[in-house]
Amino acid sequence: MSEDTSGSGYVESEYRRDSKYLSDRITADGSSGWPVEPGRYRLVIARACPWANRSVIVRRLLGLEPVISMGMCGPTHDERSWTFDLDPGGRDPVLGYERLQQAFLARDPQYSRGITVPAMVDVPSGAVVTNDFPQITLDLSTQWTAYHREGAPDLYPEHLRDEMDEVMERVYTEVNNGVYRCGFSGSQRAYDKAYERLFTALDWLEERLEHRRFLMGGQITEADVRLFTTLARFDTVYHGHFKCNRQKLSEMPVLWAYARDLFQTPGFGDTIDFPQIKEHYYVVHADINPTQIIPAGPDTSGWLMPHGRDQLGDRPFGEGTPPGPVVAGEEVPAGHGPGGIAHR
Amino acid sequence: MSEDTSGSGYVESEYRRDSKYLSDRITADGSSGWPVEPGRYRLVIARACPWANRSVIVRRLLGLEPVISMGMCGPTHDERSWTFDLDPGGRDPVLGYERLQQAFLARDPQYSRGITVPAMVDVPSGAVVTNDFPQITLDLSTQWTAYHREGAPDLYPEHLRDEMDEVMERVYTEVNNGVYRCGFSGSQRAYDKAYERLFTALDWLEERLEHRRFLMGGQITEADVRLFTTLARFDTVYHGHFKCNRQKLSEMPVLWAYARDLFQTPGFGDTIDFPQIKEHYYVVHADINPTQIIPAGPDTSGWLMPHGRDQLGDRPFGEGTPPGPVVAGEEVPAGHGPGGIAHR
Repeated sequence: MSEDTSGSGYVESEYRRDSKYLSDRITADGSSGWPVEPGRYRLVIARACPWANRSVIVRRLLGLEPVISMGMCGPTHDERSWTFDLDPGGRDPVLGYERLQQAFLARDPQYSRGITVPAMVDVPSGAVVTNDFPQITLDLSTQWTAYHREGAPDLYPEHLRDEMDEVMERVYTEVNNGVYRCGFSGSQRAYDKAYERLFTALDWLEERLEHRRFLMGGQITEADVRLFTTLARFDTVYHGHFKCNRQKLSEMPVLWAYARDLFQTPGFGDTIDFPQIKEHYYVVHADINPTQIIPAGPDTSGWLMPHGRDQLGDRPFGEGTPPGPVVAGEEVPAGHGPGGIAHR
Repeated sequence: MSEDTSGSGYVESEYRRDSKYLSDRITADGSSGWPVEPGRYRLVIARACPWANRSVIVRRLLGLEPVISMGMCGPTHDERSWTFDLDPGGRDPVLGYERLQQAFLARDPQYSRGITVPAMVDVPSGAVVTNDFPQITLDLSTQWTAYHREGAPDLYPEHLRDEMDEVMERVYTEVNNGVYRCGFSGSQRAYDKAYERLFTALDWLEERLEHRRFLMGGQITEADVRLFTTLARFDTVYHGHFKCNRQKLSEMPVLWAYARDLFQTPGFGDTIDFPQIKEHYYVVHADINPTQIIPAGPDTSGWLMPHGRDQLGDRPFGEGTPPGPVVAGEEVPAGHGPGGIAHR
């Protein structure tokens, strides 16, 4: 998703996220008009974006790479659209587009809302099916089961859904979106309240995770994916750029160990591109960083330090197994991972 | 000193500090025309400013409060001048001025350079004698000896001066000024070079201080005062606002323990007003913080943690003694010290 192209805005100086999307669903039974079908859809993402990052992780944990291809936009964008500037010739090799906007206009020539990632695109028509990011990942878990890899985890287990939905709602409003509420506050008063809300929630998580290896217990679920994508960006951008600075993540011992545990699990850290993350936030938000200078820090090598969380449970994938290596062409470039940008 | 009123500027995108000052000296023998004389001069400072902070610390370490009075400007200022907005009626009670600029104009009606703190003002004429901050503190040590308190330390010992001058020069160009070079870089390239220089110097200090309790050995000197005033502001403003973010000071173990050691020494930490420091930088530099929103963090309570540096030497004041309590009227307000602004 993009903050600048999402139609988000301010109400009484407090930042509000626009969450109206193209919300069609791709379903196993095809009743929605968009049936699950290998090779038919392309997931368009940007490495920088935490909302898109969720879908990259879930697709990989479930082993859906062979059936849903992935297009990658570059880290920055103009006020109208994300672009395929990283691709040869500046065009997505499958869709042939230069700008993600083209896929939204293919769906609706009058489309005037946010051009956001992640977007699921129907390859034959070149049109966006959905950019409803919370539904996209849940549908990967529940509708694409026929194509999950052997050993894929159940990221949205039936018996946990009630509690999970509650946890994910709080993580969304207070943390995922809470960092933006701090960064985009229109007044000191709005910021102070936003900061208080964010750190109240982080204190709650610090406590919740003290004796649970993952948010819902001993196994990784969608709830962890959603929290992880914000934590992965915390010290690198939210702490300084969004003034979320009571502590760094690395100064909250439980959350930091939890985040490292996930980072070191296949499917999580291998989707994180620190330079793209920094470039996106510091360049796109010229309203809060007018120089557009990108900080050289922080040192990210700490992400690879031992986390010691195994003692809380040793079956992160339950009866399943971790995913294999990143598929060819989807690797985060050398030097863009932890320590790659550190100066010592 | 103020970055915005100092006539500082950019040369090829790199920030350069204007260091031309009113540079008269107040001397013991009076040969400069400005003789040392109890009660004659008023030191005008702002709590926010690191260059002024030096003189506040040195005056207190030497016990010069009874002979040199102190005026305090508020944390913010307009583009022309620091102001006495904290004083009743918005006027300095001794000089009667509302704006520090008046003292500069009393000295030279054509004065057009920076209106900076610290400024030593001749009370009878209301005119600035000098705003040459590095000389002001050295002269407090060397010219005002007749009025030093009993047990005052020798902050500029003869036998150390050659090495001290070298160390202080490197600390000045690479650290005191180095953080500003990062924050005020006019280009990514200038910033990247500035960041590299800063952290190279901090690595050097981390090493130098590993086996020395203070910069020049077992005793506090002027060199420590100069380094301290930058370290005291590091996590609170330079790390985020100036993008000096490889690590926080609190993540550099030797320097952090060294800084805490000084902070906990009478004369150092009791001069630090964290809210004023934050307000100054985040409000005055609207060019790099256009929202002028002041971060609520960081948690500063860590400044009071044990430092364990006593094992490297137990005579920080040599043959002398620490200064007594802060004199009445010069206390940092309750809640403005470490932990006072923390949210847990």
